[in-house]
Amino acid sequence: MNVWGEKLKISIFGESHGEGIGIVIDGIPAGIELDMEEIARQMRRRAPGRNAVSTSRFEPDEVKILSGFFHGRTTGTPLAGVILNTNTRSKDYTPELLRPGHADFTGFAKYGASHDYRGGGHFSGRVTAPLVFAGAVAMQILAKQDITVGSHILQIGKIRDQAFDPVKLDADTLRRLGRLEFPVLEAETREKMQKCIIEKKQEKDSVGGILECGVVGLKTGIGSPFFGSVESRIASIVYSVPAVKGIEFGAGFRFAEMTGSEANDAFYIQNGKIQTRTNHNAGINGGITNGMPIVFRTVIKPTPSIAQVQQTVNLKTMENAEIEIHGRHDPCIVPRAAVVVEAAAAIALLDMIETE
Amino acid sequence: MNVWGEKLKISIFGESHGEGIGIVIDGIPAGIELDMEEIARQMRRRAPGRNAVSTSRFEPDEVKILSGFFHGRTTGTPLAGVILNTNTRSKDYTPELLRPGHADFTGFAKYGASHDYRGGGHFSGRVTAPLVFAGAVAMQILAKQDITVGSHILQIGKIRDQAFDPVKLDADTLRRLGRLEFPVLEAETREKMQKCIIEKKQEKDSVGGILECGVVGLKTGIGSPFFGSVESRIASIVYSVPAVKGIEFGAGFRFAEMTGSEANDAFYIQNGKIQTRTNHNAGINGGITNGMPIVFRTVIKPTPSIAQVQQTVNLKTMENAEIEIHGRHDPCIVPRAAVVVEAAAAIALLDMIETE
Amino acid sequence: MNVWGEKLKISIFGESHGEGIGIVIDGIPAGIELDMEEIARQMRRRAPGRNAVSTSRFEPDEVKILSGFFHGRTTGTPLAGVILNTNTRSKDYTPELLRPGHADFTGFAKYGASHDYRGGGHFSGRVTAPLVFAGAVAMQILAKQDITVGSHILQIGKIRDQAFDPVKLDADTLRRLGRLEFPVLEAETREKMQKCIIEKKQEKDSVGGILECGVVGLKTGIGSPFFGSVESRIASIVYSVPAVKGIEFGAGFRFAEMTGSEANDAFYIQNGKIQTRTNHNAGINGGITNGMPIVFRTVIKPTPSIAQVQQTVNLKTMENAEIEIHGRHDPCIVPRAAVVVEAAAAIALLDMIETE
Amino acid sequence: MNVWGEKLKISIFGESHGEGIGIVIDGIPAGIELDMEEIARQMRRRAPGRNAVSTSRFEPDEVKILSGFFHGRTTGTPLAGVILNTNTRSKDYTPELLRPGHADFTGFAKYGASHDYRGGGHFSGRVTAPLVFAGAVAMQILAKQDITVGSHILQIGKIRDQAFDPVKLDADTLRRLGRLEFPVLEAETREKMQKCIIEKKQEKDSVGGILECGVVGLKTGIGSPFFGSVESRIASIVYSVPAVKGIEFGAGFRFAEMTGSEANDAFYIQNGKIQTRTNHNAGINGGITNGMPIVFRTVIKPTPSIAQVQQTVNLKTMENAEIEIHGRHDPCIVPRAAVVVEAAAAIALLDMIETE
Repeated sequence: MNVWGEKLKISIFGESHGEGIGIVIDGIPAGIELDMEEIARQMRRRAPGRNAVSTSRFEPDEVKILSGFFHGRTTGTPLAGVILNTNTRSKDYTPELLRPGHADFTGFAKYGASHDYRGGGHFSGRVTAPLVFAGAVAMQILAKQDITVGSHILQIGKIRDQAFDPVKLDADTLRRLGRLEFPVLEAETREKMQKCIIEKKQEKDSVGGILECGVVGLKTGIGSPFFGSVESRIASIVYSVPAVKGIEFGAGFRFAEMTGSEANDAFYIQNGKIQTRTNHNAGINGGITNGMPIVFRTVIKPTPSIAQVQQTVNLKTMENAEIEIHGRHDPCIVPRAAVVVEAAAAIALLDMIETE
Repeated sequence: MNVWGEKLKISIFGESHGEGIGIVIDGIPAGIELDMEEIARQMRRRAPGRNAVSTSRFEPDEVKILSGFFHGRTTGTPLAGVILNTNTRSKDYTPELLRPGHADFTGFAKYGASHDYRGGGHFSGRVTAPLVFAGAVAMQILAKQDITVGSHILQIGKIRDQAFDPVKLDADTLRRLGRLEFPVLEAETREKMQKCIIEKKQEKDSVGGILECGVVGLKTGIGSPFFGSVESRIASIVYSVPAVKGIEFGAGFRFAEMTGSEANDAFYIQNGKIQTRTNHNAGINGGITNGMPIVFRTVIKPTPSIAQVQQTVNLKTMENAEIEIHGRHDPCIVPRAAVVVEAAAAIALLDMIETE
Repeated sequence: MNVWGEKLKISIFGESHGEGIGIVIDGIPAGIELDMEEIARQMRRRAPGRNAVSTSRFEPDEVKILSGFFHGRTTGTPLAGVILNTNTRSKDYTPELLRPGHADFTGFAKYGASHDYRGGGHFSGRVTAPLVFAGAVAMQILAKQDITVGSHILQIGKIRDQAFDPVKLDADTLRRLGRLEFPVLEAETREKMQKCIIEKKQEKDSVGGILECGVVGLKTGIGSPFFGSVESRIASIVYSVPAVKGIEFGAGFRFAEMTGSEANDAFYIQNGKIQTRTNHNAGINGGITNGMPIVFRTVIKPTPSIAQVQQTVNLKTMENAEIEIHGRHDPCIVPRAAVVVEAAAAIALLDMIETE
Repeated sequence: MNVWGEKLKISIFGESHGEGIGIVIDGIPAGIELDMEEIARQMRRRAPGRNAVSTSRFEPDEVKILSGFFHGRTTGTPLAGVILNTNTRSKDYTPELLRPGHADFTGFAKYGASHDYRGGGHFSGRVTAPLVFAGAVAMQILAKQDITVGSHILQIGKIRDQAFDPVKLDADTLRRLGRLEFPVLEAETREKMQKCIIEKKQEKDSVGGILECGVVGLKTGIGSPFFGSVESRIASIVYSVPAVKGIEFGAGFRFAEMTGSEANDAFYIQNGKIQTRTNHNAGINGGITNGMPIVFRTVIKPTPSIAQVQQTVNLKTMENAEIEIHGRHDPCIVPRAAVVVEAAAAIALLDMIETE
């Protein structure tokens, strides 16, 4: 089902090569001034064609707001944003050859002959553009509450950036990363990562990576126990992003090797405010924020569209076959995915805050 | 919000030391025969007090079905199961000392003075018992469709069991694991893991671990793109389980180091059926099942209740303080969590299948 | 689906002759003191066996709160209330003879052989008892915001009570009606109505009626346009009550004969507060409260269980047949339905207020 | 909240004088061929400016499908339809004078200064156009299952058309009514009603009316007890239509004067099929369809926009004031509302059928 949220309900639609893609966001408070330039800037972070490590397609991804916005402010009624598709090349794809790692097979399995296979149809990463629009709106509303969401590329291939310090993480760092085209904490890491991506591109291959996302400025008491836990809500929307195959909060999978005495974040009091000395639990206890930064990591699998010969099946003849995927594809989607994951987290958090 | 599901809506309630805990399951098809013995057996897998590596509390966790069940079959109307609390020792807890790693602080932050702090209240792991009941029901319905859910302990501390083979995983293996008190694939691993747990107990400490869960027998076409993806739905309910801090599907975080040519699971045809040669994507493409086994791993953090002295804050005096948590606690919750994670996955899958 | 609500999610369960009936209410704010005596009093308003115009069955309808309630206050986590069934006589019903006006036929059509037909199963009016519990809780929370819900019997057969004055309706009147066993505005109407009911009982028949429900003390701005309109939300839950077959707000069906100049409620200002001179629109414009009283009427059909011979079908033989329904049944359910309709309205309003 | 539905989730957006209005429909099955001409025809039934009894505004109401539609068939992914606003005259409205009977006051009360008041904004009847689009799609899908939805004008002012025969109502009658510009059963009634409307127009006034809607061809077993009852679901979406202030099923408010022996619809068997001799219950027992026609009536209040002088309040000066509403308005909205109510019913029924 393509509706998500409790108080802030979002409804996403569109196909890669259809008429248009978009989103309806219900539950946005009235009277919020929106900086359209900033929204456009966030959209550009996801847009393709910006540099050598990205696809050469150029899609302006201009969002047209159809409703819910009047005299520069939100009206409180549903905010609808639409992006019309303009630059598509449907000839790049042959429907009967199933592209490995893509949703061609499952799309036909689920929807039958009516599946819109062109460019992946509704499964396309392009459909995350409306999510970025919604996230950009959410981030502006959160910013007015001094909440900042940001991320960096923690890993590409075997190259790893320095990790966030989950105790000292601050808004300035997150904002600074949000202005970088290739957001990393260490400059030398960027060069190594970009070199790795270009190598994979030359090998007609692609590579995956890990994004580390941080949120600071959250009050205590956001989220609910069980089904409404912060982890549950963020994971549920982050896993909507195609290519995401894992998400961990705080110490994440390292908790397996930890003891309780190491893992428990001891409380202490400073200037009348309760804090934790470490932050292995990512600012979340029992599904509810404790006021410390949220840090989570999410893995992005390598772009499945590669120009190498791959083994597959021809759906028409039901025989084994080979496929080479040409066209314009990112050798590594991780840098463009950063703002998508931030957007997802921002939407989840705003929904939880508005549900309070 | 403590309601989960689209077609199969579950509503969970209860506190650790309250009158009772339970669940209402709406959307169960009519006419399903339920094996109450098998349900009781699944409940026992989660119940405490079974062996040396578990807490010494003994709670029978007997579920009384109040509705939706008539003449041994489901009626199609809401199925309500209740467990009355009998064996509780509220004296073990002092509300003003915040237990590190627990939800005491966030519980008071969210609910104020009315928070039921006794034994963690609604945040208690005990509230997963009704989830196991719902999961046991779901597993029986799935079994009639030849779908099997099972899990093993992949890791405790630094000790690691053999991983599932995601291509060859079969129902017999999963069923066999479900009958083990301490489910692992390699017998020698079990001894090492249990030794590790007992050591931690002697050190007044606890230890975390990783569960690996598998599902076989799924048809193609289950799940939806985006918000209804199999990963999104399973993660959303698994993250409801207290202590879960990470979940990854298939190759998971290893995708970061993989190339597209490695990560894409090549399709081939065998006996007229499309399959994949590898299964890094956990049987899921574009959020929808492709008929291969689902394999996911979830990390369980170390039990936060430990008898060591810990630094904390006294909520009444708002001063730094120390706490020693006595009472009966598991040095490692991972073995008991196995059936909870299976239950969560079974509920998510049944919901998705019924929503088709 | 038996879950209702946006912020205040309620989940109802139970069958007439099953083990128990109950409700889980999620989203109740924390720290609300509940007057259990007042809740019991509201439950008694719905309970059978209180007087000559009601059935002779006696069910104490004692609600046991299992969770969400601690030290006399709500905890903010799900509030579960259960009523165990004690006094049932399953022998009264023969499953194969379809009772006209009841859900026997549709129950078997939907659920097949597994339908719990005993006393109507989940379709029984008895399952409204948990709704009254939830409504009694909601009414107490609304009362703390000076919002009062009440109702009277407007019509039984052809006998009609005076209607509410939708402009001058006040909380005292509504509260006074809530303490009456047979709530009407004019004492002489009561006698005529009761006489009518007893006549129908003697004729082995039953009779319907209309309830008029009022709400005062609402602030402006509650509700939403379209799907979240006050009328939509109240109607959706009131129509959950078995036997309800119509609901109208304000002038209701009389709007058909009115002109715009009559129907529009002119605004005027008094003591700085905007009010309307008439209140044909029931305090609701565009689905949102304008601060004037809400008045709606709902029709309750005659009890279908009558002792007269009725034509029907034997589901086993699939032949025409006759049925006489003995057992203890209300000749008129309207007086007992009053608190159920009030409860439904109170739940809907609290949900809308909490969703703001 | 502007999202409606369980399986078939619809999300509506737009304002009268904004950039565009539209709807996203999630949950439409894949592979449904859509007759675009028929959809356009249904849109024209609601469109203004068609005749003397309607407003002189002309809005083509052309729906552009942006997604979910490929090669003439639905794809199974969200279907988005957008109507761009072209012909608007914002100058007709002065925001500070509250129009009686409209949502100006409640709009400002809820959304504050950011409320888009132009032409009623999101509260405008114009926003029902996307609902008609969704309903036209739903009706085509229902038609493939031999389910027909239709309606006629039962009453305008004091003039009343013959009522449907709830037992013999047939698809041909409903389809024939759907092709009439002014749908009534008796030709002479039409003339009287139209005369009445024109008179009210000349008096600078407007008039209300009642629509009677019928559905035939439904299988047994659709709907659920309680919150998912057919009455609850239909009422909830019909009450989303601005101007609706009452809805009754079958005998509706006449049940108040009926006895059980009259009101119960006796079952009998004919050609192996269980039917009822009368159909006072509108084909619904216990919230679930019994296979007989559904008949419901809904009242439409008089258009609040009238050219007469009306008393009101100036929101800026907070003083009593007068208002005359000029511009192009329908003296009676009932004929145009027919397809909107049918659309709402069709959406509700398809949602319930798909949820089975």
